[in-house]
Formats: sequence, C-alpha cells, structure tokens
Amino acid sequence: MSRDLVVALSGGIGGAKLALGLSRIVKPDHLIVVANVGDDFEHLGLHISPDADTLMYTLAGLDNTTLGWGRRDETWSFVETLAALGGEDWFRLGDRDLAVHVERTRRLHAGETLSAIAADFCRRLGVGPRIIPATDDRLRTRLRTEEGWLDFQDYFVRLQCRPVVRELAFAGAEDARPHPRLLAAFGDEHLRAVVICPSNPFISVEPILAVSGMRQALSACAAPIVAVSPIIGGRAVKGPTAKMMAELGMAPSAAAVAKRYGGLLDGYVMDFADAAEAAQVAAKVTLASTLMTNLEDREQLARVVLRAADALAPSKRGRDLVA
Amino acid sequence: MSRDLVVALSGGIGGAKLALGLSRIVKPDHLIVVANVGDDFEHLGLHISPDADTLMYTLAGLDNTTLGWGRRDETWSFVETLAALGGEDWFRLGDRDLAVHVERTRRLHAGETLSAIAADFCRRLGVGPRIIPATDDRLRTRLRTEEGWLDFQDYFVRLQCRPVVRELAFAGAEDARPHPRLLAAFGDEHLRAVVICPSNPFISVEPILAVSGMRQALSACAAPIVAVSPIIGGRAVKGPTAKMMAELGMAPSAAAVAKRYGGLLDGYVMDFADAAEAAQVAAKVTLASTLMTNLEDREQLARVVLRAADALAPSKRGRDLVA
Repeated sequence: MSRDLVVALSGGIGGAKLALGLSRIVKPDHLIVVANVGDDFEHLGLHISPDADTLMYTLAGLDNTTLGWGRRDETWSFVETLAALGGEDWFRLGDRDLAVHVERTRRLHAGETLSAIAADFCRRLGVGPRIIPATDDRLRTRLRTEEGWLDFQDYFVRLQCRPVVRELAFAGAEDARPHPRLLAAFGDEHLRAVVICPSNPFISVEPILAVSGMRQALSACAAPIVAVSPIIGGRAVKGPTAKMMAELGMAPSAAAVAKRYGGLLDGYVMDFADAAEAAQVAAKVTLASTLMTNLEDREQLARVVLRAADALAPSKRGRDLVA
Repeated sequence: MSRDLVVALSGGIGGAKLALGLSRIVKPDHLIVVANVGDDFEHLGLHISPDADTLMYTLAGLDNTTLGWGRRDETWSFVETLAALGGEDWFRLGDRDLAVHVERTRRLHAGETLSAIAADFCRRLGVGPRIIPATDDRLRTRLRTEEGWLDFQDYFVRLQCRPVVRELAFAGAEDARPHPRLLAAFGDEHLRAVVICPSNPFISVEPILAVSGMRQALSACAAPIVAVSPIIGGRAVKGPTAKMMAELGMAPSAAAVAKRYGGLLDGYVMDFADAAEAAQVAAKVTLASTLMTNLEDREQLARVVLRAADALAPSKRGRDLVA
C-alpha cells in the first residue's frame, strides 16, 4: 500500500519555509498544511489570518523575500493614508495584502468558513497543496505578561515581543473543533507522516494542538510524527522562541522543545550544532543541517524529515499492531 | 449686521467645482457644504460616501485631476489583487481612497456619526470649510428603470447609467433627519445665501431636499436661495443629467431644471448659451459663463452666484417682513 499523504503543522515564516520544501517533493494533492489560527485577529474590522496567508503567499511564490514577510510587489498607499487620517497604522497592511483581508472578511460575513475561503484563494493563486486552518472556529492566542493579559498581535507586533511572558492561553480552544479533513487525514491509512514544522512551539504549534480533539487525533495516528527543531545552537532562527523559553523557565535549547512536545513525537530532526543534546531527547533523533537559507535547503530538509518518518514507520505501525 | 454664512448643497464632481470656488472667496468657518448621501453604499462591507469624499478631496486639493474622480497620487494594487481573488472589482477603489472607507466604516461601527467622522477627516486633511452629510441617517437613492428597481451604484457605476430611468426614490428619507447644524444654519440671521450647486437635480440635489424637514427648513429660510444650472446649451457638462431628463419626460434644458426646483429658488444662474430660456424661469435669472474648466472659472462663478444672492436679499427679507 502506498502511503503518500503528508500533513504538516505550521505557523508563519519559519514553518512556511519547510512547507515550501515539502511542496517540492510531495505531490500537491498529497500535501496538507495545517495553519495556526491563534494569530488571527480583527483589525480595522477585517479578519486577518497572518499564518495562513504567509503559507499561501509562500506556496504561491508571492512572498516578499525582501521584507521577509507579507506579499511581493507590495505598495503601501493604504497605510500611509490611514496614518494621515489618524487611523491605527501599527499593523502594516500592504495594499495587495489588504485585498485578501477585505475579501475574506466579506465572505466570512456572508457565511462562508475560513477554510473554504482559504481553499478558494489558494486555487485562484495557483497553490497546489491544501492549506487548512486548524479550525474554522474562533481560537485566539493570549499571553499573560508582566503587563497583564495581552492579545497576540498586541504582544507580537505592537509591543514587538518586549513584555516578559508568564503564561499562554488559547481562548476558544475548548469549543473549537478541528477541520474534518484533518481528522480524516490523521486516521487515513495512506498517511505517510505528520510533520511539525520548525515554528515557535508556544504560539504556532500549541494553538493547533489546543483545538479540542486535535492532540488525541494525533496521538491515535498510525503514521510517524516528526518535528523539526526551531532552535539551532541555542538560538531561534527568527522570532521570540528562545526569549519566550527563557521567560517560561526552560533552557532555550533544541532538546527542551522536544521535551515540550513530549510523547507526541516519534522523531525529531535537530541541527548538527545541537548534537550534544541528542541524548536528552526521548524521540528518535535525526541530525541534519536545519538552517534554510535558499530553496535547495528547504527541499533538502523536507527530504530528511520524510526519510526520518519513513524509517520510523515500521516500528510505529508494528507497535500499533501489538497494542 | 454682517451676513456672511454661506451654505452650498452639492453632489460630487460638478458641485465640488463650485464649492471649491466658494471656498476661495468665503472664509472657511463661514462656508458649509452639504453633501448628498443618496449615493452612499455598502461595498465589500465598507461604507462608501462618494459625494462627501469627492468634496473632501477637492477642498483638500487631493482630487485626481487626471482621472476626474477619486484621489490624487492613487495606486491600484488593492483592486488588482481583489480581481485575482475573484472579488467584485467593478467599483474601482484606489488604495488611498480605500483608507477613508475602511477607517470610516470602523468608526461607524464604533458608534460615531457620518458627520463627526467627516469633520475629523476634513480637519486632518486640512479642509477649512465644514462638509456636512445631509443626514446622519440612512438614505439611499434608488431608480426604477426598464430593468426594474436598481440601487444607485448598480445603475451609476456597474451599468454606467445605461438603463432608462422612469422614477426615483430615496429610501429612508422619511425617517432621516437633517443634520442639526444645517437646520441651525437655515434659520441663522447671519445666513447670506443658500447655493444649489450645478449638480444633477435628480440624484444629487433632490436626495438632499428629500431628507425629512429639509425642504421646509429651506423654504422658511430668510436668505436667498440661488441655484446654478447643470445644463449648458441643452447638455450636461458631465454625467447623465440630460439623459435622465429626457427619460423622465422633460426637455433637457436649463429652464427645465429651474422649473424642477420650483418655488424653492429665488435666483437662478444659467449660461449665456441659454439666454433664450430666461423668460421661462420663474426665479430671478443671472446670465453668466458657467463652464468651469480652471480654478479662475470656479472662483469667478462663485462670485457671480453670491452677487446674485446679495442682490436678491433686500427683496426677500422685505417680503418676509411683510409676510
């Protein structure tokens, strides 16, 4: 039996790099990328889905490689004018990016789901793999900091991750249901691997796992679950992962991220730079070069991850048969 | 006693030309421009106020003189991207223009009034005169055509005024109240003149007059009311005025517009080209060059209109004293 379905859990920028690598070696209709929705927020009356859009732009080849975020060939007339009108301009909305938010908001108000809209946008922009928001229900990451509870984008963009984080919560998670296609995928006999992309565990991956029933469905999954460390040599490639780990009382290390995922992981891909920590990881470790600076890196790391999963498959499925 | 307050009723482009002329000869805090709201509509979930915005852009010197509508230095990334996403792109929203609609919509949802938002935008963009929407309540121009009843922008933009018009209605007019500042102005002893700009009578001026109590307040007004003909030599300078007059069974003439306004007018400014029709007009006629192609034309016509009003003032106020 051919096991060819791959599901990748991803946040924004870092996860999207590996998702792009996967999209180059997995057939489009065999790849599902699950987008974190904990970053979603309402701004200026618009529903903004930063992670799903970053994934869409990246897989469509429309990502802005100069800025490192947002959309290619972007213009900024809207936000410039908004500032002149006294509007809130702390969240930099590009003119092209804005079209996605305005049209998504219009369609949400007309009764469509987040996932149906994402699927249609992807189709129109020529994205082959399916990008599915973890849930069509409302789920929002909130952070308890030394300044009190903050909404995610307040913390992340407006305050530029400066506040010290003490606790995270995913408002709405208990009432949120996973997208049915995800539950089907996790139980699919054709599932080859679940990949946890090198995203921030606290604000990108855990809001996905927090969706009611998601963690259980993953735990019951017969295919190997392999995560890629977002930490290389004790530092995050991008973003506040290392800072948050320290604030939450963890060593900012690749091994600590694996420990955070706990028994969920069958395999863990970490950088050669962190080889000394391999013994601390309960899952089967694969050492690799995990820094993705170009397209070849992305594709190469994707191959490593799937190879690691394939190597784990017989023992995991065997274990399941015994159990 | 100095009578120095001027109130101008205006639609979009044509009316804004005279409003700009008036703004150059009347002190900013003595000029109120009443904007038609019958063209307002919801599009993509945004509240769009075409006439108030055209007035604002024109008086701020931000109007797009190349296009003849919209905003100067405009970019079009939003609407291009919207089209790629399958969104409705028949109404061409520029990126800068969009900021006005998004911010206005946000503030309306937060409970502010259309007029308060317009006042704040004007202040921020450096507009001296006060632009006041005719009403803060909902009023929408609808047209009965040979294709049935149409919303204004469907007729005006999407169908480019092609359907034959049989009847107009102003939905919500009976429940709409004039902005209190307007009622105060019409009763103000310092009121020098009410100017009806050379706008389309059916779709720009009459939706203002249709607001409940507006026509009565104007009729009771002690200052002269002077209109400027939007028709020159049997043709409209711009837009569907002449076409609509013919479809509604009127001769497309300057005199017919004056007749349409009926007893409301004390004075009427019409073009030299239409001198032969002067005898058909019940109000006191002033002949002038009414085509406004440059800034000097606008200012010159504004002077003519106010002079005409000043000449009418003694007899009107005298008549009021007698009555």
